[in-house]
Amino acid sequence: MKWEVRVAYKRGVQDPEGETTLEALRMLGFKGVKRVSTAKLFVIEGECTREEVERMCRRLLANPVSQDYEIRRLAP
Amino acid sequence: MKWEVRVAYKRGVQDPEGETTLEALRMLGFKGVKRVSTAKLFVIEGECTREEVERMCRRLLANPVSQDYEIRRLAP
Repeated sequence: MKWEVRVAYKRGVQDPEGETTLEALRMLGFKGVKRVSTAKLFVIEGECTREEVERMCRRLLANPVSQDYEIRRLAP
Repeated sequence: MKWEVRVAYKRGVQDPEGETTLEALRMLGFKGVKRVSTAKLFVIEGECTREEVERMCRRLLANPVSQDYEIRRLAP
């Protein structure tokens, strides 16, 4: 099976990489950019069920205080 | 406009974060996991065309030596 996990900051939590990227883009002349936010993707392949991927998120991939995660199945 | 940029390692390039994550998951008991790969997502909002987002990728968001990028429009 192949799963995609998207880990992003919760609404209201600072996204320092997004802020730095926004600043850098504006310094490079991309004046139209108003907001940049970032997220991390993990593609996980192997013999694992959705429940196991949920547990991976809670135990390792996401920080439950500041991050949300979304799990999507890419292949059977 | 709202754009999503996905930056991932090119095929054949090492993905150290993916490898470390794989190791950590297996140490945590997720023995079925065979492979983990990672990517970075940027969500970019503002007045910018696809061509500008292409230029952002080439100039800042992706390393052309080791990374590929994909641009997707999320909202008009």
